[in-house]
Amino acid sequence: MSSTFHSMWAGLLPIGRSSASGGYRRFAWTPADADCRLWFQAQAEARGLFYEVDRNGNQWAWLGDPSRGDAVVTGSHLDSVPDGGAFDGPLGVVSAFAALDELRRRGVVFAKPFGIVNFGDEEGARFGLACVGSRLTAGQLSVEQAHELRDADGITLPQAMEKAGYDASAIGADPERLARIGAFVELHVEQGVALAALSDSGSAAGPHAVGVASAIWPHGRWRFDFRGEANHAGTTRMEDRRDPMLTYAFTVLAARKKAALAGARATFGKVSVEPNGVNAIPSLVRGWLDSRAADDATLTELVAAVEEAAAERAGRDGTAVSVTRESYTPVIDFEHGLRDRLAARLGGVPLLPTGAGHDAGILSGVIPTAMLYVRNPTGISHSPAESATEDDCVAGVLALADVLEDLACG
Amino acid sequence: MSSTFHSMWAGLLPIGRSSASGGYRRFAWTPADADCRLWFQAQAEARGLFYEVDRNGNQWAWLGDPSRGDAVVTGSHLDSVPDGGAFDGPLGVVSAFAALDELRRRGVVFAKPFGIVNFGDEEGARFGLACVGSRLTAGQLSVEQAHELRDADGITLPQAMEKAGYDASAIGADPERLARIGAFVELHVEQGVALAALSDSGSAAGPHAVGVASAIWPHGRWRFDFRGEANHAGTTRMEDRRDPMLTYAFTVLAARKKAALAGARATFGKVSVEPNGVNAIPSLVRGWLDSRAADDATLTELVAAVEEAAAERAGRDGTAVSVTRESYTPVIDFEHGLRDRLAARLGGVPLLPTGAGHDAGILSGVIPTAMLYVRNPTGISHSPAESATEDDCVAGVLALADVLEDLACG
Repeated sequence: MSSTFHSMWAGLLPIGRSSASGGYRRFAWTPADADCRLWFQAQAEARGLFYEVDRNGNQWAWLGDPSRGDAVVTGSHLDSVPDGGAFDGPLGVVSAFAALDELRRRGVVFAKPFGIVNFGDEEGARFGLACVGSRLTAGQLSVEQAHELRDADGITLPQAMEKAGYDASAIGADPERLARIGAFVELHVEQGVALAALSDSGSAAGPHAVGVASAIWPHGRWRFDFRGEANHAGTTRMEDRRDPMLTYAFTVLAARKKAALAGARATFGKVSVEPNGVNAIPSLVRGWLDSRAADDATLTELVAAVEEAAAERAGRDGTAVSVTRESYTPVIDFEHGLRDRLAARLGGVPLLPTGAGHDAGILSGVIPTAMLYVRNPTGISHSPAESATEDDCVAGVLALADVLEDLACG
Repeated sequence: MSSTFHSMWAGLLPIGRSSASGGYRRFAWTPADADCRLWFQAQAEARGLFYEVDRNGNQWAWLGDPSRGDAVVTGSHLDSVPDGGAFDGPLGVVSAFAALDELRRRGVVFAKPFGIVNFGDEEGARFGLACVGSRLTAGQLSVEQAHELRDADGITLPQAMEKAGYDASAIGADPERLARIGAFVELHVEQGVALAALSDSGSAAGPHAVGVASAIWPHGRWRFDFRGEANHAGTTRMEDRRDPMLTYAFTVLAARKKAALAGARATFGKVSVEPNGVNAIPSLVRGWLDSRAADDATLTELVAAVEEAAAERAGRDGTAVSVTRESYTPVIDFEHGLRDRLAARLGGVPLLPTGAGHDAGILSGVIPTAMLYVRNPTGISHSPAESATEDDCVAGVLALADVLEDLACG
């Protein structure tokens, strides 16, 4: 198993990697994304699977006839955030093929159709909305909304798809495709230190290489537009200014404090400034708040408190702030039956909630869905420093194979 | 006079104007800059002046033989900051031509050669360093340093000049050209409310349409690199983060407080973030501090205090901060003889210090230099909202004509 895993991994590693940062830039419908897709197709064909691309550009590889309606499907995504790590997404796809190899090595007989999927544009790095491929398929993103998505160069999602050689006129909800699936299991590198922390605290390391998802925190993106008055940085007295950078800075620190108090998450990781000149007080600072919490009420309260702090400071700075919710995903509680079946099959592995969104979270509203996490020793993700040990990756593949065997061959 | 002024102004107004913001984007060696230069050449030729471009791309228009060494020169610049106003720069060039028209209308006889100049790349909007044309000419920017200047697309200053049709191999100090000049007077819109405040405080409005510069505050640009650790915005606990956006935000607010206490200026108007993704804690936040004060000691202390606050907060955030001084211009005290001659000729107009840098400040170290300011009712500059009344602009032209007559015809 290890050598197949290695050679698959080696084929993916160079694609879309920035030599400057060491991170990945595999954005939807770019040449790097196309190379990832060719890799997927080659893996499918090398295993004699039936390969197809659905109307939303998601890739599928089938063993058996999925039209029966009880297929067992696994997979994840191959795209990345800007300067992302190697594991977020690809580990789930590579492990899917490796788990199939392991099941064939075990000589198991599939009682149900089996599929592997690569969902398109999971990270939303290019068009600002995460999980576009699974959202469209699940009917959580309308065709009209999808047509309005634009990248930083003003290129729309359909234009980008067409340029990449896909027929964008067909995008939309795909209930027939989802009706094929009886269970979906996504394996993903953990994006936090929960498994590593359990391993450190005196337990044996072995059992905690893998965990099962319990829930995905509700999360959303809010755009804060701080508007002031452009002016000369050298001549405008501090007391005469209406500087939106001050209001932005105050809001960043307020969000940090309030999130820590609430045991939640709040991040301003993206900002754009106009006119963005060294010697000009800005007229506009636009900052995006990513916020998540264990439940919807906590998250709603947290964001309201950040908005209130921003508005209060804007009053003092002579600026104005307006807030637009760009996306929101309520709490996902994974189906208990499937979740417990996985945990039982794996012998009492930890159940973990997460703050990260996934295609599995989108699909969980439509079909029985579960997730496995592979231990991340540092918890770092969305960074070139993201890592997982080879032993843990192998443990992940074996756990995924066990689960799939239970679901598809039982 | 007014109709010439109007028609010159009307010729310049559309060049490089953004229909979105209403502001100007006349960056060095771009097509908008080229259009401004064609306008200058046309004005020079329409008046029968001898037109030339010096080795650094500055434009000159001469009446009489400047090789005598006692020429009286006036002018300013035509480039702009991003989304700048219509007056910062162009008012000084338009007023220069209008003042010559006025002197000819008066029928004065020039006893000395007379010149009008448009200095290139005063704002530094493209390459990050202000007053490149006058700095090169005055020998304050070496050819080696100039070759290292790059715009946001990585294009070097020489490449940009060559692309605009200029011979960049000749750039460098030009003492022979400066030796032609006996006095340089730059007229500029005031970038503050000092004249307007004097006018409001019960004095007659008339006399305070124009002021004479006393000094330019020392000023500089410092680049603050805040480095942390990229990570997932949804899964990384607040206490596990090394988020440089927090250190940046704290530094922005500290700079504001400390500048206000020191009666100085400190601005973070430009920022760049890596990877700048909504769901990623940044690895790097780069912010540029523009700071100015009445004297060098105050400015040095202020910037040191901001650096100290940044370093202290970086310790708490688990981030690192490094500071690079990108430019520094010591205090400019304009030559008292020329300054007092202007003030006397104009009948006791106010003497004003300013926080804004100018080509006149660069040249003041080499040749006798003075400045006139035209009242700005709101003080707003480096913004589309920058303004000056037509009456005040006319008063500026007449004051400049009076001063030039005194210097060149006496």
